[in-house]
Amino acid sequence: MEINKPEIVAEVQREFMRYERALTSNDVEVLDQLFWNSEHTVRLGATEHLYGFAAIQAFRAGRSPQGLDRVMLKTQITTFGDDYATAHLEFQRIGSDKVGRQTQAWARTSEGWRVVSAHVSMLA
Amino acid sequence: MEINKPEIVAEVQREFMRYERALTSNDVEVLDQLFWNSEHTVRLGATEHLYGFAAIQAFRAGRSPQGLDRVMLKTQITTFGDDYATAHLEFQRIGSDKVGRQTQAWARTSEGWRVVSAHVSMLA
Repeated sequence: MEINKPEIVAEVQREFMRYERALTSNDVEVLDQLFWNSEHTVRLGATEHLYGFAAIQAFRAGRSPQGLDRVMLKTQITTFGDDYATAHLEFQRIGSDKVGRQTQAWARTSEGWRVVSAHVSMLA
Repeated sequence: MEINKPEIVAEVQREFMRYERALTSNDVEVLDQLFWNSEHTVRLGATEHLYGFAAIQAFRAGRSPQGLDRVMLKTQITTFGDDYATAHLEFQRIGSDKVGRQTQAWARTSEGWRVVSAHVSMLA
């Protein structure tokens, strides 16, 4: 298992940034595309637990587009072989002094790189 | 990429429970063993950000063994092929009414299954 092959890191970095842009602009179509369309996908948000793609999709559809902009403070991506990766982000919402954390597990599916698990929280 | 091969799920479930027992009994040796010994390992805790195995190890060594016991409310493990998995846990500390969440990415290294990324937080 080769760690951080440069070409794989570049692929994941690109998708990770695509997700970030979609999140802060509330581009629900891209957000839905980048999460694995599976009953096994999990997203544990700051205030919600979402099990399965349908629950995640419903959450996106109902979310207010206000206040999603954020500054990226620190990112760390690690890739495992050609098909798996973890991505970590520390962020700050505009107008907030709290630090948030987002972690994701990514897998290369037949449709491309997808988030298979995510966890978002504020530092206590 | 075969999802949730029964024998792989069983392997990860076993290591996941080994971690849980070690955590609640503060068995630092096993906790250290089960985290990937790499500069790339990340553990974002409720109150701390730990980058690299050395930082995680120092945190374990300095942690109070009090108040670590917890009840498992819900677990969800998904495996990807033979060598990669995500694990999710909702838990409640004894004497607390807050719900905590732990997510882990696991990878099979040359030394066995290891946590390569973890995130722990309390539900807001």
